[in-house]
Amino acid sequence: MKADDKAIQNRLRRIEGQVRGVQRMVDEDAYCVDVLTQVAAVQTALEQVAVQVLDAHVRHCVADAVAGPDGADAEARLDELMAAVRRFAKVR
Amino acid sequence: MKADDKAIQNRLRRIEGQVRGVQRMVDEDAYCVDVLTQVAAVQTALEQVAVQVLDAHVRHCVADAVAGPDGADAEARLDELMAAVRRFAKVR
Amino acid sequence: MKADDKAIQNRLRRIEGQVRGVQRMVDEDAYCVDVLTQVAAVQTALEQVAVQVLDAHVRHCVADAVAGPDGADAEARLDELMAAVRRFAKVR
Amino acid sequence: MKADDKAIQNRLRRIEGQVRGVQRMVDEDAYCVDVLTQVAAVQTALEQVAVQVLDAHVRHCVADAVAGPDGADAEARLDELMAAVRRFAKVR
Repeated sequence: MKADDKAIQNRLRRIEGQVRGVQRMVDEDAYCVDVLTQVAAVQTALEQVAVQVLDAHVRHCVADAVAGPDGADAEARLDELMAAVRRFAKVR
Repeated sequence: MKADDKAIQNRLRRIEGQVRGVQRMVDEDAYCVDVLTQVAAVQTALEQVAVQVLDAHVRHCVADAVAGPDGADAEARLDELMAAVRRFAKVR
Repeated sequence: MKADDKAIQNRLRRIEGQVRGVQRMVDEDAYCVDVLTQVAAVQTALEQVAVQVLDAHVRHCVADAVAGPDGADAEARLDELMAAVRRFAKVR
Repeated sequence: MKADDKAIQNRLRRIEGQVRGVQRMVDEDAYCVDVLTQVAAVQTALEQVAVQVLDAHVRHCVADAVAGPDGADAEARLDELMAAVRRFAKVR
């Protein structure tokens, strides 16, 4: 997933800056609703990282395993994928 | 996905009954928080249907396309899969 | 919450019809992704019911308790409200 | 919300560290599923911050406005609260 790594790192650095921004808001007694809005922005940014990692994973690791000769490996990757999707979508 | 269809239909029939149960609760002026709890139960049941349909889809349609000879078809199925996951996880 | 009840019942009846629609789709072997799209529509409709019930609850039950003379009751309603919000937002 | 500020700042500092941890994982080519698991942990931690801010907001700002003499202000705070809950629960 080399091609995607740089984009993911850029997003993560921006997220790190956003988290520090929220810390400053709390320090400066910002209005709760503004803090919540900023936390929501970080959550959206993190979701986009998660989707990008999941996308790379599906297109490389999972697709390779499914196209490969080892049926048991393909099965294991699909199980792992569905577990990740479940966790990601917060399915109870 | 024949094997899964019966399980999915059973879940859907149970969900239909649960929705009618919520209608009765509203008719009988049940306490809001109890209505919310019951709506949450229906949402959980629906998510489980969605995960089961997604699981069958990944293991059959997507895996077949990826293992098949038509690279463009595999690509299209993976795009479609990721769009479904995004929608399911409510990624903004 | 009389004023909202009719709107909520209308939504619930529509949801019941949508759930039966999904059952038909599964019966008729509809394409998985179309089933998922329809399940997502039901989930959105249910969320809107939940938000409407929560809204009525906050504006009536909670606001009355908070404005009322019984501090312990107000506290209990606020705890209950936050528990409902947590469940609704699927906070782990 | 003084009492809660310190707890929120501690959580935010831990989140900042977790985000740097994800950056390291990507640098070191960690397995996608492990990256996803770590991103999910940051999301859970952020949600807990959001709930804690929302909780403080409801118990102080909103409750004060509702208990206060200014009905229009109370109404505005309740609107704002429901908008925050909607955004937080990602209601479409």
